[in-house]
Amino acid sequence: MQHIDTLIYAGWIIPVEPENTVHEQYAIAIQDGKIVAVLPSDDAVRHFSARITYRLNNHLLIPGLINAHTHASMTLLRGFADDMPLEKWLNEYIWPVEKAHIDRNFIADGAKLAIAEMLRGGVTCFNDMYFFPDVVGEVANQAGIRAILGLILIDFPTAYAQDSNEYLQKARKVQEQFNDNPLIQTALAPHAPYSVSDISLKAGKLLAEEFDLPIHIHLHETLTEIKEAVKKDGERPLTRLRKLNLLSPKLIAVHMTTLKNEEMAILAKHGVNVVHCPESNLKLASGTCPISKLQQAGINVALGTDGAASNDDLDMLGEMRTAALLAKILSKDASSIPASTALQMATLNGAKALGIDDVTGSLIAGKSADIVAIDMSDIETQPIYNPLSQLVYAVGRDKVTDVWVAGKHLLKSRTLTSLDIHDIKTKTHLWRDKISASRQT
Amino acid sequence: MQHIDTLIYAGWIIPVEPENTVHEQYAIAIQDGKIVAVLPSDDAVRHFSARITYRLNNHLLIPGLINAHTHASMTLLRGFADDMPLEKWLNEYIWPVEKAHIDRNFIADGAKLAIAEMLRGGVTCFNDMYFFPDVVGEVANQAGIRAILGLILIDFPTAYAQDSNEYLQKARKVQEQFNDNPLIQTALAPHAPYSVSDISLKAGKLLAEEFDLPIHIHLHETLTEIKEAVKKDGERPLTRLRKLNLLSPKLIAVHMTTLKNEEMAILAKHGVNVVHCPESNLKLASGTCPISKLQQAGINVALGTDGAASNDDLDMLGEMRTAALLAKILSKDASSIPASTALQMATLNGAKALGIDDVTGSLIAGKSADIVAIDMSDIETQPIYNPLSQLVYAVGRDKVTDVWVAGKHLLKSRTLTSLDIHDIKTKTHLWRDKISASRQT
Repeated sequence: MQHIDTLIYAGWIIPVEPENTVHEQYAIAIQDGKIVAVLPSDDAVRHFSARITYRLNNHLLIPGLINAHTHASMTLLRGFADDMPLEKWLNEYIWPVEKAHIDRNFIADGAKLAIAEMLRGGVTCFNDMYFFPDVVGEVANQAGIRAILGLILIDFPTAYAQDSNEYLQKARKVQEQFNDNPLIQTALAPHAPYSVSDISLKAGKLLAEEFDLPIHIHLHETLTEIKEAVKKDGERPLTRLRKLNLLSPKLIAVHMTTLKNEEMAILAKHGVNVVHCPESNLKLASGTCPISKLQQAGINVALGTDGAASNDDLDMLGEMRTAALLAKILSKDASSIPASTALQMATLNGAKALGIDDVTGSLIAGKSADIVAIDMSDIETQPIYNPLSQLVYAVGRDKVTDVWVAGKHLLKSRTLTSLDIHDIKTKTHLWRDKISASRQT
Repeated sequence: MQHIDTLIYAGWIIPVEPENTVHEQYAIAIQDGKIVAVLPSDDAVRHFSARITYRLNNHLLIPGLINAHTHASMTLLRGFADDMPLEKWLNEYIWPVEKAHIDRNFIADGAKLAIAEMLRGGVTCFNDMYFFPDVVGEVANQAGIRAILGLILIDFPTAYAQDSNEYLQKARKVQEQFNDNPLIQTALAPHAPYSVSDISLKAGKLLAEEFDLPIHIHLHETLTEIKEAVKKDGERPLTRLRKLNLLSPKLIAVHMTTLKNEEMAILAKHGVNVVHCPESNLKLASGTCPISKLQQAGINVALGTDGAASNDDLDMLGEMRTAALLAKILSKDASSIPASTALQMATLNGAKALGIDDVTGSLIAGKSADIVAIDMSDIETQPIYNPLSQLVYAVGRDKVTDVWVAGKHLLKSRTLTSLDIHDIKTKTHLWRDKISASRQT
């Protein structure tokens, strides 16, 4: 009889590794924040005695969802500007409001709102890109969620930094600040090819290499972006990044809506990771990422919500469903991106893209106990013929009841244990009033 | 001071008529199941004294959502077969399981499950198409939800009827049974051009004319359907229906994924209603309905979930969001199908398609009190800059707290008042066991 911290019995467990597997009446044993074993409930009774035992017979356990691209603090701008294309949305609404309001408080309050929403929806890890990543890191650390902080690099002055030198100085500082944190890591995050020069990209690449960081960038988001790049640089953005030697398994290329076949071959050859943000791409009419083809070409495809200002939620269960539905119509094949693949994109593939698949992304012994429990007993998810289908096509995020990150119980019967939801709401109302008032003047 | 039954104060009301309007701090006055007035809360205090008063300051009120195409009882087959195209799904999975299991009990239990789910998601009216419509009508009547029963007509024998004569005899009987019911109406429902002959369609048309019924049909669902029709009949299904004089404002044409420009002109000319079921169309890779173009051509476009066996939910809030997102990418215009239009499709346009827009579909004096209250205070819907945007792009159906149909309070703080949810779950489990067992043999 082995003594452990936590034992969770569940109606079903979908571990993601091995692929396309649903265990019935299984349990997960946890010690020191790590998974010790995933085994039949009958065996668990005999092998483990736990300090805390959960019996979740109506529940399905899955690995924590990984939001592979977001701008957490922008959740304060949810619904600020809708029903318009990316360029107008950015130039006329988002950038002006950011210029007027962004400071450390905005970032902290926005990140808390986002993390609360993500935890309530089963997201245990997010890959962020925004200003003041140190503030996002502090909030994430307090909340206990796993995060990759984007060390932002952009060629125009903001409240955060004045020029690429200052962005990179701050990047180094943030990287050093979180160097030893077990849950918080960093990635170099040049905003996009159209907003970062070759000189800045080269300097950023040196920094990323120094600390062995992933590079997180918006790439081929719209056809307009590509056309303007061709006009200005004489080449498509992906070609430019290739010449700068930025294509590698360390690159996290977000959006990729406009891709030639030869570009897909290049992505595959260099092992580039693609993050698909279908709802943001649809809402801004940016374009569609050909994930069925990318998948077939062996490219690692992860999923992200993008920011709540363009989505308008941070719902990875919903994103998974949208990705599966959209892939079917684009490929004219209803068997394309089946439920098991969609779930893999939202978990293990995200971990791979972020370079943390040795730690999270699936429920196997040795990995961190990043676990989501979903109540399957409500009528909206009944009857259950196949829990995997049900998860992707019928479960809403309101059915997420419990979330653990590295074994810590951060959502307990839908109550957040590390964040003050009343305080988050109060601050959110204050920001809404302030931002609305400034818009009317 | 006017004495009335019910007065609901709300933080916001979106009445749909007039279009694109959000009232803040408004109230709805209800008497004898009908809306007496929609007015500022300050005025309501002075003008009305009500037997029951609700103060929903954190809530948004909208007209009840209208699910303009579904197969309610098929909810018992949710998740039974996924990730495959329409033809395989129908021929190899759905039709065999229907043949083996459909009887009056299946229909009743499935309809209860569906109605419970719809009410919990803010749906107050559904347009059904399935076998044993009398049973669906009885269940809907007991539940108090508004329904249009599809008087099914199909050229093959089922547990319900053996040939088109028997289908039409039963149709007449069901129409007579519900003739005087204030909430239940009927529509003639020939399944699809590929499953109903000209002779049957002509006979059905006569019956529809006799009782002035709408005609509800699957039309142009897939390219395969059209190709096979051209091979068999030498013409596209829409052309065939035109020759049979079936195109009129009484026609409810569901799916319409493959349309030529001249066909859109024909639809507009004849005033045909189109029901768009985006999630089912995506999931089965059936095709995409060009709703932006239809809207521009002045065609009435409503929304439906289709059955839960191909969706896999009956979530009209989600369907509205998917319709708006999909329309933007298809038309390459992020301003296409803005939030106000999406909401109109899910409410007033549905009522128009079903011929009941004098009764429901918007919150104006004289119409039935078919009302949905949505709690906007949770973090997932904060901050609120524009409640209309928030409704379409951020609200999940779990935020629906209260639903009234014809003034009756059918969902009360998320509890169903006219349905026994425990009994529904028990019956659903039994059907799952029975159907799963028969599949394994």
